[in-house]
Amino acid sequence: MEPRLNIVTLGVRDLAKAVAFYRYGLGWPQSSASVGDFAIFKLSTGTALALYPRRLLAADAKVKDNGGFGGVTLAQNVADKKAVDLVLSQAVTAGGVLLKSAQEAEWGGYSGYFADPDGHPWEVAWNPFFVIEKGCLQLPE
Amino acid sequence: MEPRLNIVTLGVRDLAKAVAFYRYGLGWPQSSASVGDFAIFKLSTGTALALYPRRLLAADAKVKDNGGFGGVTLAQNVADKKAVDLVLSQAVTAGGVLLKSAQEAEWGGYSGYFADPDGHPWEVAWNPFFVIEKGCLQLPE
Repeated sequence: MEPRLNIVTLGVRDLAKAVAFYRYGLGWPQSSASVGDFAIFKLSTGTALALYPRRLLAADAKVKDNGGFGGVTLAQNVADKKAVDLVLSQAVTAGGVLLKSAQEAEWGGYSGYFADPDGHPWEVAWNPFFVIEKGCLQLPE
Repeated sequence: MEPRLNIVTLGVRDLAKAVAFYRYGLGWPQSSASVGDFAIFKLSTGTALALYPRRLLAADAKVKDNGGFGGVTLAQNVADKKAVDLVLSQAVTAGGVLLKSAQEAEWGGYSGYFADPDGHPWEVAWNPFFVIEKGCLQLPE
């Protein structure tokens, strides 16, 4: 199996509300490949982000869903501490919920978390050990 | 906030077991940026995949975790139906659990799901409406 992740799909309760958050609140580009209950966003980092009703997503994957957090977080790495504060602020203005205000992390960086309208946690982080080029992490082998 | 997703972090119960699945079972390249309880894999699609103890992940994001599915699925798109069968088979051989065997999908493609050792669902899909180049989805604007 090749080391590839093409789409991350977030289950949502209210598709219109979730699309509004990402498309209009954050200003992310929704692709015309979106169809019906499936909304997909083209990200500059390669892997796409999709939104789909959570009930249908669980049914499609044949998994039981008790609701709540499922042990997955998404992260955007930014260039400096100031950008962490700015992005968290933008996300909250767009309708996200601040889960953790930006703070010094024990691993040497600076980060905070917001939740999207469906509670999916996004970390916004500055990591002094990571190199970012054109928005993409440049990880060593 | 720029349309970027740098890292997807999957919470795991047993880090060594999860790393063994992705690194040795699937053969994915673990980056030397991995440190302590944090394992990170460089994927050819851009966004990185990280593994971190689920308990610590929930605590870091300040979210309550009741366990189970959290409304997030990951997907790998492949070139044809045969590749769907092959990748699902590889994942199961590596220790994944088949959640849904490959089948014709109502949206016109062919897909199935497996779960990694921590239950995170991966869809393996052939979508005749999506263009893939060098493993990356080429989504229209």
